Amino acid sequence: TDTVVEGIHFTSESIGWHNLGWKVLASNISDIASMGALPSYAVVTLGLPPHTKINDITDLYKGMLSIANQYHVSFIGGDMVRSDQIFTSITLTGTTTKDPLLRTTANVGDVVAVTGYLGGSAGGLQLIQQSMKTNKASQDYLLACHQMPTPQVKSGRILVECNIRTAMDISDGLADDLSKLCLASNVSAKIFLNEVPVHSLLKKSFPETYNELALYGGEDYELLFTARSDLISSIETKINCPVTVVGELINKTEKRILLIGANDQELEISSMGWTHF
Amino acid sequence: TDTVVEGIHFTSESIGWHNLGWKVLASNISDIASMGALPSYAVVTLGLPPHTKINDITDLYKGMLSIANQYHVSFIGGDMVRSDQIFTSITLTGTTTKDPLLRTTANVGDVVAVTGYLGGSAGGLQLIQQSMKTNKASQDYLLACHQMPTPQVKSGRILVECNIRTAMDISDGLADDLSKLCLASNVSAKIFLNEVPVHSLLKKSFPETYNELALYGGEDYELLFTARSDLISSIETKINCPVTVVGELINKTEKRILLIGANDQELEISSMGWTHF
Repeated sequence: TDTVVEGIHFTSESIGWHNLGWKVLASNISDIASMGALPSYAVVTLGLPPHTKINDITDLYKGMLSIANQYHVSFIGGDMVRSDQIFTSITLTGTTTKDPLLRTTANVGDVVAVTGYLGGSAGGLQLIQQSMKTNKASQDYLLACHQMPTPQVKSGRILVECNIRTAMDISDGLADDLSKLCLASNVSAKIFLNEVPVHSLLKKSFPETYNELALYGGEDYELLFTARSDLISSIETKINCPVTVVGELINKTEKRILLIGANDQELEISSMGWTHF
Repeated sequence: TDTVVEGIHFTSESIGWHNLGWKVLASNISDIASMGALPSYAVVTLGLPPHTKINDITDLYKGMLSIANQYHVSFIGGDMVRSDQIFTSITLTGTTTKDPLLRTTANVGDVVAVTGYLGGSAGGLQLIQQSMKTNKASQDYLLACHQMPTPQVKSGRILVECNIRTAMDISDGLADDLSKLCLASNVSAKIFLNEVPVHSLLKKSFPETYNELALYGGEDYELLFTARSDLISSIETKINCPVTVVGELINKTEKRILLIGANDQELEISSMGWTHF
């Protein structure tokens, strides 16, 4: 179940109604994907101010239906309530025939890997918030990352089939989410900064800050997983997106996450990840 | 799934944190009860302002746990988000071995019946809102009706066993909820005002308005059902609460609900039921 609130998780400037509908369901589907499961049934609650336009609600539903159809999600109920702030709260069920991927099953010596590219969503948000101009290709890519993210359902299924046991989705940023995984499995992790996958269109628009966006930017909805290093190549051949080893798990140290730069130098880690309060 | 928002569905004056926890889960359990099912798994989302006290959240959970234990509900997840207004959004699953009770299966000629007494919750709310003084017994009864309602899970199961097919819970008031049932089944209904069951403690405190409270007051969480009249006596012997026939279903007329007073006189129906916007 996942809830987003206007002014906290989004604003009317950061996203329109259609894409908001897509994104709120995408983040729920991503939670299912992160366990290696298939999404099935959703209940949708909307909190809306009385002055909300019917057309806007229609657009919101169109966005939800468009991703629901793509991922075979059925809406089976919901609720609508009056609220000063707009919010959506979705509960989504999923099914899996094998053990679900968990955060608690990581082992020291495992490599840490991610699907796809990171930082795109945070880059898209910065474009919007700072009314930045950039080239058309970057703009299209980054706005799509932020507003219409793609949950990694197929990738999650492939991880399960490849006997991976530990995964989560990246919703609060790589550094923050990996630290949660480490906490759950009672280990620490090194992240090799130069290995973190960043799309060339993000680098082009944010040549100074793409590393920060990739490490601390949330809402990429890629999968973060840990695996014995010899399993990575078989995953790479089956999965339909880039898979990048970005770090490794080590015995628990005082720090949950060690950020490693060039020449094995340890860099300071920021705490820019998402905090709920 | 059911969501309540501060300032819309409750205020800090109308209910404390513990009882709010009880009540928000009670209203979800009541939805399951109204289908003749048993509640099973819940996910709980809290929207809270940053200044919320930990003790208040603990009390909220204690209230939820107390009713969850009583009805064998397991919490399997949830979410917590920042929000200016407090809100709770719960999704609850339930199971049934027979066909669930529906709103769409009512037939002309069926009698309309309710469990328990109506109007107590609205009476309790008026006591609070108007800082009314009344006798201790009435006060205790009415506040409990408003703040710690009892979902009719057992009653719902008995209805199913007695081959009843049509029911819903009374959350928005008898008149309003019966009109929804009529709409869903494409019939109309007569309500015999003098038959509507009102507890003596409500009558005592609201001698002038108890009828209005019983007809239009929401959140009683009793069950409203329709049945062939010959089934009522067998239900009465099995069910552990009063069962009262309050009306009958007739062919669809212009009005969904006809309110019948003494001497078969038709009375005007108010539209005091809950509206979402």
